[in-house]
Amino acid sequence: MTTAPFTDLAGLRRALADLPGPDPQAVEAAQARNAQLTKPPGALGRLEDLAIWYASWRGNGRPVMAAPQVIVFAGNHGVTAQGVSAFPAEVTGQMVANFKTGGAAINQLAQTFGAALDVVALELDRPTADFTQGPAMTEAEVVEAMCVGWQAVDLGSDLLVVGEMGIGNTTSAAALAAATYGGGGADWAGRGTGVDDAGLARKAAVIDAGLAANPIALEDPLEALRCLGGRELAAMAGAVLAARHRKIPVVLDGFICTAAVAMLEAAVAGALDHCVAGHLSAEGAHAKLLERIGKTPILSLDLRLGEGSGAALALGVLQAALACHSGMATFAEAGVADG
Amino acid sequence: MTTAPFTDLAGLRRALADLPGPDPQAVEAAQARNAQLTKPPGALGRLEDLAIWYASWRGNGRPVMAAPQVIVFAGNHGVTAQGVSAFPAEVTGQMVANFKTGGAAINQLAQTFGAALDVVALELDRPTADFTQGPAMTEAEVVEAMCVGWQAVDLGSDLLVVGEMGIGNTTSAAALAAATYGGGGADWAGRGTGVDDAGLARKAAVIDAGLAANPIALEDPLEALRCLGGRELAAMAGAVLAARHRKIPVVLDGFICTAAVAMLEAAVAGALDHCVAGHLSAEGAHAKLLERIGKTPILSLDLRLGEGSGAALALGVLQAALACHSGMATFAEAGVADG
Repeated sequence: MTTAPFTDLAGLRRALADLPGPDPQAVEAAQARNAQLTKPPGALGRLEDLAIWYASWRGNGRPVMAAPQVIVFAGNHGVTAQGVSAFPAEVTGQMVANFKTGGAAINQLAQTFGAALDVVALELDRPTADFTQGPAMTEAEVVEAMCVGWQAVDLGSDLLVVGEMGIGNTTSAAALAAATYGGGGADWAGRGTGVDDAGLARKAAVIDAGLAANPIALEDPLEALRCLGGRELAAMAGAVLAARHRKIPVVLDGFICTAAVAMLEAAVAGALDHCVAGHLSAEGAHAKLLERIGKTPILSLDLRLGEGSGAALALGVLQAALACHSGMATFAEAGVADG
Repeated sequence: MTTAPFTDLAGLRRALADLPGPDPQAVEAAQARNAQLTKPPGALGRLEDLAIWYASWRGNGRPVMAAPQVIVFAGNHGVTAQGVSAFPAEVTGQMVANFKTGGAAINQLAQTFGAALDVVALELDRPTADFTQGPAMTEAEVVEAMCVGWQAVDLGSDLLVVGEMGIGNTTSAAALAAATYGGGGADWAGRGTGVDDAGLARKAAVIDAGLAANPIALEDPLEALRCLGGRELAAMAGAVLAARHRKIPVVLDGFICTAAVAMLEAAVAGALDHCVAGHLSAEGAHAKLLERIGKTPILSLDLRLGEGSGAALALGVLQAALACHSGMATFAEAGVADG
């Protein structure tokens, strides 16, 4: 845990302009090893790509993943006053308690794949402002939330999953996507935790009102995060940026997570090169959003829960990829003819 | 381990005609529990279906998976004389040795997900006959191989993955599919371990020759297994049938595994109800074959290795599904408002 190297949006822009890249020597070593393993070339499909990608960021051609970390950030949203969710806002806090006592899906998923789970609630009793009336956050608030995210990353971890809980936050995520990639509320709104048709139409209208009330959000993705985001979304972006600076690979979760961190990619192309998309969510426009950031999801199992659940599920695939890459015998070691 | 209750194809047909079904009470209990868990309805997507399916076969509305078993069956194929593989036939035995010393992908995958791994080599020094010249096996040979498969299933296991190793066996699998579902070699042949265009054309022609030399294979899927299959394919079918009789759920692997066990489904509709498709392989016509048996794959990651690798990878998803289903808190337990 370290303090974030920025205290305002200008400082954040500097941190985004100076991103470390992958290690070309590790890529070369990983590719060479992959070619010698006892299997036909390419027969492990995407597992091979994942192992080489992971190696490239860890700077090690034969890496292991020993300490994955899942962080769930929680926040409350003033826009829930507009009736955009099937659940009351109190559920955010209730679910944080559930995370802490081990009762939620993410607890089970983190445990299944041996990941540490940290839960960070961001000022739940102080929701963001209703973005239909103006910016959701001040500059100080969004930067503070990003710093909380940055500091939550365990420097000893070697894989990061960021998840979220926040009643109303699919509305916020759809607004971010609309502001940044064009289109209106109807193009990006989804059913979230399960709104009906009327609720879906209301969400779309609320997003359009948010775009109209925050013209600067359409000009700049970091302003979009401030004006239309939420504390847990900003924290996810801060954590993913911290992971990049520490060369910790990231598995992205669903629509909300992707929308939050897409603001980094929209600000600086390549800012998410250390990230893979864990899954394709059933939530609304996730597929379209993944296309915009150029990511192909590992899994597609119709999850739409958030909490980091889809990304945590993909951890198993990544662990398997690394076990094969780093644990298999080579043709020479096994005395197998290589075709 | 028990002896198979058949000693000839007539006995096998009787075992296929008397299959136990899922437990309706367990389904009801699992559905009721699923509805009370702390998540929006349906938000865990396919994980919910998988948990309920598993519950239905284990006869327990809140099941755990404690003892998954992976069995890799290996066999040699006379049809390799026709030049259908990119690798020499000796590789089958070399890879069996690699499985036994822990160097192969399936060793790493089984270990990652805590599965026991058994390797069963079936008379590697006595390949099946070249099916372009007549039946690959006699009735005694195919039944013996199915019995080996049946007996390899650990009665104490609670999940089965069957995989295979056998140079030439994608040709055999494609021939089974063509005989049973129509079309010719060109419709079902794929690149296997990596043949070039000429090799692919040769495979298709070899399959067509096999169909011509074994007309009875087009009439009866169990005869297809005898005439065009191989020992490891028959063993997989025997193991999956044993699992059904023991109510052990099965995760199917790729093209070869699917083709082998599809002969059970083609013989008796519903014979694979205790099975899910672990993944969609990159091998040729796997998608078409899965459609024929009505299964939607859990994963689609371009694997085409065999060994049970794609199914073993899907174990992680199934374990996660069960952890969520059986381990999460209910709304009442967690004090969360349920919308």
